[in-house]
Amino acid sequence: MSYEVRSLNEECGVFGVWGHPDASRVTYFGLHSLQHRGQEGAGIVANDQGKLNGHRDLGLLSEVFKEDSLLAALKGQAAIGHVRYATAGNGSVDNIQPFLFKFYDGAVGLAHNGNLTNAKSLRTSLEKDGAIFHSNSDTEILMHLIRKSKQPTFIERLKESLCQVKGGFAYLLLTETAMIAALDPNAFRPLALGQMKNGAYVIASETCALEVSGATFIRDVGPGEVIIIDDSGYRVEKYTEDTQYAICSMEFIYFARPDSNIAGVNVHTARKKMGKLLAEESPVEADMVVGVPNSSLSAASGYAEASGIPYEMGLVKNQYIARTFIQPTQELREQGVRMKLSAVRGVVEGKRVIMVDDSIVRGTTSKRIVQLLKEAGAKEVHVRIASPPLKYPCFYGIDIQTRKELVAANHSIEEIRELITADSLSFLSEQGLIDAIGLNYDAPYSGLCMAYFNGDFPTPLYDYESTYLASL
Amino acid sequence: MSYEVRSLNEECGVFGVWGHPDASRVTYFGLHSLQHRGQEGAGIVANDQGKLNGHRDLGLLSEVFKEDSLLAALKGQAAIGHVRYATAGNGSVDNIQPFLFKFYDGAVGLAHNGNLTNAKSLRTSLEKDGAIFHSNSDTEILMHLIRKSKQPTFIERLKESLCQVKGGFAYLLLTETAMIAALDPNAFRPLALGQMKNGAYVIASETCALEVSGATFIRDVGPGEVIIIDDSGYRVEKYTEDTQYAICSMEFIYFARPDSNIAGVNVHTARKKMGKLLAEESPVEADMVVGVPNSSLSAASGYAEASGIPYEMGLVKNQYIARTFIQPTQELREQGVRMKLSAVRGVVEGKRVIMVDDSIVRGTTSKRIVQLLKEAGAKEVHVRIASPPLKYPCFYGIDIQTRKELVAANHSIEEIRELITADSLSFLSEQGLIDAIGLNYDAPYSGLCMAYFNGDFPTPLYDYESTYLASL
Amino acid sequence: MSYEVRSLNEECGVFGVWGHPDASRVTYFGLHSLQHRGQEGAGIVANDQGKLNGHRDLGLLSEVFKEDSLLAALKGQAAIGHVRYATAGNGSVDNIQPFLFKFYDGAVGLAHNGNLTNAKSLRTSLEKDGAIFHSNSDTEILMHLIRKSKQPTFIERLKESLCQVKGGFAYLLLTETAMIAALDPNAFRPLALGQMKNGAYVIASETCALEVSGATFIRDVGPGEVIIIDDSGYRVEKYTEDTQYAICSMEFIYFARPDSNIAGVNVHTARKKMGKLLAEESPVEADMVVGVPNSSLSAASGYAEASGIPYEMGLVKNQYIARTFIQPTQELREQGVRMKLSAVRGVVEGKRVIMVDDSIVRGTTSKRIVQLLKEAGAKEVHVRIASPPLKYPCFYGIDIQTRKELVAANHSIEEIRELITADSLSFLSEQGLIDAIGLNYDAPYSGLCMAYFNGDFPTPLYDYESTYLASL
Amino acid sequence: MSYEVRSLNEECGVFGVWGHPDASRVTYFGLHSLQHRGQEGAGIVANDQGKLNGHRDLGLLSEVFKEDSLLAALKGQAAIGHVRYATAGNGSVDNIQPFLFKFYDGAVGLAHNGNLTNAKSLRTSLEKDGAIFHSNSDTEILMHLIRKSKQPTFIERLKESLCQVKGGFAYLLLTETAMIAALDPNAFRPLALGQMKNGAYVIASETCALEVSGATFIRDVGPGEVIIIDDSGYRVEKYTEDTQYAICSMEFIYFARPDSNIAGVNVHTARKKMGKLLAEESPVEADMVVGVPNSSLSAASGYAEASGIPYEMGLVKNQYIARTFIQPTQELREQGVRMKLSAVRGVVEGKRVIMVDDSIVRGTTSKRIVQLLKEAGAKEVHVRIASPPLKYPCFYGIDIQTRKELVAANHSIEEIRELITADSLSFLSEQGLIDAIGLNYDAPYSGLCMAYFNGDFPTPLYDYESTYLASL
Repeated sequence: MSYEVRSLNEECGVFGVWGHPDASRVTYFGLHSLQHRGQEGAGIVANDQGKLNGHRDLGLLSEVFKEDSLLAALKGQAAIGHVRYATAGNGSVDNIQPFLFKFYDGAVGLAHNGNLTNAKSLRTSLEKDGAIFHSNSDTEILMHLIRKSKQPTFIERLKESLCQVKGGFAYLLLTETAMIAALDPNAFRPLALGQMKNGAYVIASETCALEVSGATFIRDVGPGEVIIIDDSGYRVEKYTEDTQYAICSMEFIYFARPDSNIAGVNVHTARKKMGKLLAEESPVEADMVVGVPNSSLSAASGYAEASGIPYEMGLVKNQYIARTFIQPTQELREQGVRMKLSAVRGVVEGKRVIMVDDSIVRGTTSKRIVQLLKEAGAKEVHVRIASPPLKYPCFYGIDIQTRKELVAANHSIEEIRELITADSLSFLSEQGLIDAIGLNYDAPYSGLCMAYFNGDFPTPLYDYESTYLASL
Repeated sequence: MSYEVRSLNEECGVFGVWGHPDASRVTYFGLHSLQHRGQEGAGIVANDQGKLNGHRDLGLLSEVFKEDSLLAALKGQAAIGHVRYATAGNGSVDNIQPFLFKFYDGAVGLAHNGNLTNAKSLRTSLEKDGAIFHSNSDTEILMHLIRKSKQPTFIERLKESLCQVKGGFAYLLLTETAMIAALDPNAFRPLALGQMKNGAYVIASETCALEVSGATFIRDVGPGEVIIIDDSGYRVEKYTEDTQYAICSMEFIYFARPDSNIAGVNVHTARKKMGKLLAEESPVEADMVVGVPNSSLSAASGYAEASGIPYEMGLVKNQYIARTFIQPTQELREQGVRMKLSAVRGVVEGKRVIMVDDSIVRGTTSKRIVQLLKEAGAKEVHVRIASPPLKYPCFYGIDIQTRKELVAANHSIEEIRELITADSLSFLSEQGLIDAIGLNYDAPYSGLCMAYFNGDFPTPLYDYESTYLASL
Repeated sequence: MSYEVRSLNEECGVFGVWGHPDASRVTYFGLHSLQHRGQEGAGIVANDQGKLNGHRDLGLLSEVFKEDSLLAALKGQAAIGHVRYATAGNGSVDNIQPFLFKFYDGAVGLAHNGNLTNAKSLRTSLEKDGAIFHSNSDTEILMHLIRKSKQPTFIERLKESLCQVKGGFAYLLLTETAMIAALDPNAFRPLALGQMKNGAYVIASETCALEVSGATFIRDVGPGEVIIIDDSGYRVEKYTEDTQYAICSMEFIYFARPDSNIAGVNVHTARKKMGKLLAEESPVEADMVVGVPNSSLSAASGYAEASGIPYEMGLVKNQYIARTFIQPTQELREQGVRMKLSAVRGVVEGKRVIMVDDSIVRGTTSKRIVQLLKEAGAKEVHVRIASPPLKYPCFYGIDIQTRKELVAANHSIEEIRELITADSLSFLSEQGLIDAIGLNYDAPYSGLCMAYFNGDFPTPLYDYESTYLASL
Repeated sequence: MSYEVRSLNEECGVFGVWGHPDASRVTYFGLHSLQHRGQEGAGIVANDQGKLNGHRDLGLLSEVFKEDSLLAALKGQAAIGHVRYATAGNGSVDNIQPFLFKFYDGAVGLAHNGNLTNAKSLRTSLEKDGAIFHSNSDTEILMHLIRKSKQPTFIERLKESLCQVKGGFAYLLLTETAMIAALDPNAFRPLALGQMKNGAYVIASETCALEVSGATFIRDVGPGEVIIIDDSGYRVEKYTEDTQYAICSMEFIYFARPDSNIAGVNVHTARKKMGKLLAEESPVEADMVVGVPNSSLSAASGYAEASGIPYEMGLVKNQYIARTFIQPTQELREQGVRMKLSAVRGVVEGKRVIMVDDSIVRGTTSKRIVQLLKEAGAKEVHVRIASPPLKYPCFYGIDIQTRKELVAANHSIEEIRELITADSLSFLSEQGLIDAIGLNYDAPYSGLCMAYFNGDFPTPLYDYESTYLASL
């Protein structure tokens, strides 16, 4: 499924490097491999012998750094970067990260992936105390807390501040003398440490960015950990002992790139296994298995392998970005949909098709794809979803904060089947998902956050509590 | 394989519609599905009650028509459009099509996919006679011939002119009263006719564009045919009887979209069969089959199915366009390569991999991919190419006009294997390719042009003859 | 009067240099000083050791060559450039000059200032003979004629062609071996030859461009002359002996820059004298003389000097270009006018003002300025126009081709006075204008074209004859 | 003199309107007339029924609001705007105003013209207390002070804060319920209040902006005053009684538009009188008076009138913005200078010229202009400067903060004459300047700040004290 047609949006990717003479270029490459995590804007802050400079703007990374001179100007041996998720609304460059703060006594770059559950309370309280915020983003809060802290060192001020913010967060900071990564106490968001051949250290939201930058994986950042990297190497500290693994299961299902590993598990392999278990749980007689490109191809090949039914390319995604203006007629709007995804008549005509997708959010996209297949002549379309029904919102960094838009929160599976005009519909079971990913942490669901599926939130919801309860 | 990293360039795609109130929007959708055939520039000419207007520019279609107003300005019930192939050099907007010619006695829009083999002779001869050309493109030649012709009607002037141009060509013309498609006597390039629900006729380089515009396939344009579409319907005429099918085999192997049909054969299906026959011809023991995304995925799945070896996602292509500036160091250049294509360590580490690709041009890309796989831990990499070795240039519309750059023209298969550092290397046989595509025309190679592989050119080479012979 | 608010548009400026190592930069500087002659687009063609390259685009010169790299790419020791006049309509880059023609036997750059009176006939005749035009501009015609000519040398083909085109024209051509300037038989448009310190020759529409490029004036190009410049120096030839001076009087009145000399007469000095004679012809009692900036400041200071009435800055022109969107209300539209020109309350309040302007076209601008002055408190506004009433269109290069829009063609002076709400109104007499400029050629009106004022066109009107006669 | 060639930079212009249905459009018009006060960037914040929205960017106003949609989006009946001065350096959009601050309890827009002398101390002290700044601008400081204040109302918090900032400042604030203007205790910077026909109130840096928006002048904002405008009208309050007029004399000499009035004095009239007194103080025999366009034209016409020597247009300024790339040779650099300003050979050749300019900063520009005149044939060039020698820096809003660059701080008049290669050189006396402007306040120098000329700073210099003293 492509990010254009649905509303499940990741909240960003971060990348940083310490100890490389072309740090901002390495960061550019790393960010490019994380572009799927955010398309609204991008930025890089570099450390040139203690002086911090940055550039950020709205748009894809290749647009933000359209001219090489912009990148060349970001000299220095350390840099952090950020890609920000796409929103429908009118984005402002003020929200694009990394933020670069300059003080009389130093400068700090700050990038953030995640969502705080007590952001509103903290912001109001800080503003009452005279603080001025310059963006809508909850990322600034951490810097205000750090500047308010009376602890003696920057690291201690940071740790004190990390104990005050709640929710899901992966922070990456660049100071004049160090690069620092920090993860929330549940490890909701992925964050990995690696090392390049020349000894430089790399921090990235996904391991695919380590591969791209030629770095070797060292370890994942753990829950409640702070990793400080400077010219003397890296050291791991904890800002809290009150931790418990609850890794976002949607990273495995949909967000992360298939070539990334999270908690030691390869994402493609996990998805393929989701497809295999789905085939075992919900078999159906058919002529072919068709995956919805691109995110469902792994699951579809797993389904095909387990079922023995041949895998075919019955849907083709246009690799070029489509600009879809508001179209005056329904006919043109339908053609607009086909610009992005086409059914292959020569493959599906007259056939019984198993269409494998990774998830269903509102159901509108699934309905369109089923219809594309049927218009192209498919005799039957059996929809198999390689994850359980999405019934609950997320407050830790995924852009679904209301149950209203979730079709599975309001309809039975049979109702959904009817809505999307499929001949049959099945979802992977919760246990199937847990087994397919195969984590082994001593925590509920083996260390996964399954809240989207069962509402079992691993933390209090703070500022979201009341509206969430009202929505049930 | 992606167009960014190799030099096999298609020379354009054309699309036109007659009889639709939003003709230019339909053309925009159609062209978008042909964007893979050309990324250098795009344009549309529309017919607004006999008045022709156009817009064209350098860049992807979505960049050329960045503002909806540009499209909205192209009113009318008929339109033709064009996407032009990407070149390394400094393109000029003067070469972007469709060309729009305005005369005291009418206007004509002209778009062209192909390459003329007698362009240089015709141009010199026309210039000696006072003609002035305004582009480097050989497309203008047809219009000069038409204007010089003394035949009584436009169609007759066109037919006379078509007999003078040689090589591979698919023309699409828009006049004040008609849309006209014409194909060379060998049908080198694909061109199809379809009809929308409202009765509008559509002409497109590939049938995928018919699907996108919601049109039903009527027929392929045949060799030596002219199809005239106007308000009274369509009629098929021939400008020559001296025809013989020699459809470009590279369209099946690499250029066309998998969801297109050419001469009634689905491209994905043909590719999958190439993979199957390749598996039969050149089996090898291994742990997995990996396709080079995106164009080799069909062949790879065919190889996997036929061999019984599991198909895995061992290579991931970044779906976002990479801007690769000139990088100061070798290390950064290598990271630049990985921006586009990554090997999946979690999948290939410690495994014996069969890497399936569609073709080898210079060998540099294959070498890089083999090395990516090995760096990611692959124990063995067996390269299987789903087409025969490319040994000869093309003069009918593909951008390879010298043998020097073709690695297979100058090296044995064993030498190539060594060059690309593969553990083994095999190509599909010529007969395997012909069988996989399965045409049935009463012509050499069942109606395919196999000249890249065996130098058997279906036509005289005219202006290219001497340099070609010298290159042997 | 500023070019933004009226419709008297010059048809371009040309500049060329032969023999300077940075020819395109010298041309850039020269064109910049001719920018007042055309704002729609600009271009430069340079000759790099016999190879011609060019760049052109819509917009001001500084926009067209926004990046220095565009200029740096135009290497070579010779170059020609062009600025094109602003039109209200949607301009196309196809019309921006210099045109660069490439033939199998050479290349030619061509720039043109003027208007042909037999363009339509020539174009139709050429098209009937197979010629294809690529712009709406009449400039292309000359190149078609040259290519059709059977004369043995380029210069002879050019001369033959110059005898076929009629009207007002100043051509500048760049070939692989020479730069050539040519002027119409009436010398309607100005064109001057100069020489730089390093020996390089310069051709420019106005002498101000010679000054800017540090060149010394040698001579004006005369009527019916061709000047050929190459590495051996320059030589002057004639293509016709049937010549008679009829220099455009509007160049002196309005178009040319005050620091230019035309036919040896400084434009500022001529304008100041127009003001002086106007003061003598039409005195009036008042407190101050106010010129309409910028083109009327010379005439106003002449009026002040001759009348002894102090010259004051009662009107201020905003030096920044104003973007005036379509304004929703009348009030906002009026503010839009004031954005460009303001009356100075502190100067004019309670005073009797003599407002000096160079000309009146439609009368709407004059009316607005009178009202601005009255709203700012002026007690009386006496309008004095430093040229005779504009009653006839121009067919030699000025963008007024219908009498309908000319207020003086349809109203008496008293009617105009009432229309523009002035307290009194006078125009300079025709003889006053002739005396102020003070040419001394043996030709009607001492060598000026006075057709705007009296309809005495120095040449047949050819294609315009019938519509002109119908308009009388 | 044009802003391109010298380093006297005004620090901005402000404009605001309360009570007009198209407030942002009125602000756009008003700002356009203040564009001469700042070209680096521009912005507008509008109040749409209590909701504040803004747009700002680098570039001229017409570039910042290139698309009408940007302006149309700023709905509401009140708006404030700002133009920011041009710097050589790499500007950041973060410094472009108005700043728009959003708090849990409201929003505030803030624009500022001036310079604080205790900015550094205040900022450090605020940062020590936890404040985070987001720009380099000293404008943010006021907002931090307001938010820290414990006063009960916004106006009282503002007044308390205004007592803490020192130096020259004109603030314009927009809240959800009011527009507020405030001026420093010396009235260094101009600021005026006016009223439109529909009753809307307008605040502007110069009265020319009142004229453009069709508003009638009500009063200047006085030293130490706060003017609060809301739906009930306007009221004037004072935040301090410790005030004394010291209006920036450079506003009269150079910065302000000639059609503006400051403290009731028309700027053109004051400049003309400077020229008259200069003629009386420093007469010289010559053939003509030439003003340096555009800012010296008033003074030059005054000089001409008083001396009886004719005023001529001996220098012409190109009205189009020149883009001067780094030029490879000295010759090209000189041509670059001539792009902006040309001497008129036809006027000055063989003549004795009195060149009147408003001021001399470094002397390099004067030298160039003298040389332009001599190269164009002027026999003698007598330079007359319509203000006293600039010897001291400014800390109240003009961008000269070191004496090193001021030629008159380090050289005698005779030395400067030699440097600029003039035949004679005189400056207006200090008393001449005071008399020409003719203020009548009960304060030193009749209410003018003359510190540039005599170092008599009307306030302590705070953070600048030590570096200033060291520079003497």
